[in-house]
Amino acid sequence: MSNDVETAVTAANAEFYAAFEACDIDRMSAVWDTTDDIRCIHPGWPLLAGRSRVMRSWSVLMANTTYIQFFLTNVDVVVAGDLAVVTCEENILTGVDDADHGLGGSQRVVSTNVFRRRGDGWLLWVHHGSPVLSPVSEPG
Amino acid sequence: MSNDVETAVTAANAEFYAAFEACDIDRMSAVWDTTDDIRCIHPGWPLLAGRSRVMRSWSVLMANTTYIQFFLTNVDVVVAGDLAVVTCEENILTGVDDADHGLGGSQRVVSTNVFRRRGDGWLLWVHHGSPVLSPVSEPG
Repeated sequence: MSNDVETAVTAANAEFYAAFEACDIDRMSAVWDTTDDIRCIHPGWPLLAGRSRVMRSWSVLMANTTYIQFFLTNVDVVVAGDLAVVTCEENILTGVDDADHGLGGSQRVVSTNVFRRRGDGWLLWVHHGSPVLSPVSEPG
Repeated sequence: MSNDVETAVTAANAEFYAAFEACDIDRMSAVWDTTDDIRCIHPGWPLLAGRSRVMRSWSVLMANTTYIQFFLTNVDVVVAGDLAVVTCEENILTGVDDADHGLGGSQRVVSTNVFRRRGDGWLLWVHHGSPVLSPVSEPG
């Protein structure tokens, strides 16, 4: 794979987080694939499938977010044909206080983001974020 | 994509859970790709990368598991070239009581499993499981 492709996927991944930071629902909508098979798992949430549910969840999250900032670490990109998988750690600083949904204060989330190539761009197909509940970096 | 491919990926996904149910580390090892870029996120855990860390985590989990059974629901398979992404809900019955690691009793986990085609088979490249902490099925 070329470095150009990895760069494009990394940029698409960064735009996802930038859209959330900006609380811009139109920008967030543009990040996602337009097909109805998109899937999103927010930290601690059940699976949401379909554009309607996924975008509604972002509207709700954004409406309840006064401030959020992501510091991404260990961003790994692998591309295979028209599919790209990104894993990264989200170090989050937020003004949200929503412990029920696993979002609040400063916290760590691990994410797997799957992008599909659509024409010239890469659109998000699956976002899976999970809360890091354990302080250990590896078992035992 | 052919139904044969989807069937093969679904079987590989089922074998992953069967290997854990059997607490058979050799079987689990055979499920995963042999490359060192495999990644595994157990529910509530940080990201584990590389065969050594990932397989060690399975050894530890299996050593601490007296009984575990998975009832998979909403299994979705999408294949693109030599990459396949499976999302599913794990409804888990377990004898483990390990609340620190988000495993214990009866619980729900949402998983994204990414497989790569290797020769005739499909090997697991990324497993990402996250605990469902919220009782809601969707926001709002």
